[in-house]
Amino acid sequence: MAQKEIPTVLVGKKPLMNYVFACLTTLQSGANQLVLKARGRAISRAVDVVQVLQRRFYKDLKVADIKLGTEELTGPNNQPISVSTIEITLKR
Amino acid sequence: MAQKEIPTVLVGKKPLMNYVFACLTTLQSGANQLVLKARGRAISRAVDVVQVLQRRFYKDLKVADIKLGTEELTGPNNQPISVSTIEITLKR
Repeated sequence: MAQKEIPTVLVGKKPLMNYVFACLTTLQSGANQLVLKARGRAISRAVDVVQVLQRRFYKDLKVADIKLGTEELTGPNNQPISVSTIEITLKR
Repeated sequence: MAQKEIPTVLVGKKPLMNYVFACLTTLQSGANQLVLKARGRAISRAVDVVQVLQRRFYKDLKVADIKLGTEELTGPNNQPISVSTIEITLKR
């Protein structure tokens, strides 16, 4: 059997609970793994999402892996901008 | 020999390079491990610090461990506030 792709939730600038609900929907549809991705200032929001999920909804949800990285973007004046990224893999 | 305590750099609201230099000073004083702690919005800055250290100064610096957590604080009107925390352990 081919490996199933792990569903991903991209955390951005919307309110925290939007992402929490996106994760809940994914988990309730049967996924037992989930990747949260965020970059720049949204990184702290991604951590908030994990905390809310673990404390309020899925006490048995585990952080399986966290990867940090950098993405190179181009700024408004064509200057290169480095943005930090995070990928949090959740398992239950 | 008693286990040496791992030096800790607490990342807050100051400019990024302040924390990068604090880490460099610690590493140059002979430590081969280092813990970066941050909470709330400073979490993304802590990730930035790791990225700058790895890309500009210590190519061989590894992220050994990342812990996420929550701290309970008391807000200005005595209401409880939950703040996400991160602890990044670096090794070289």
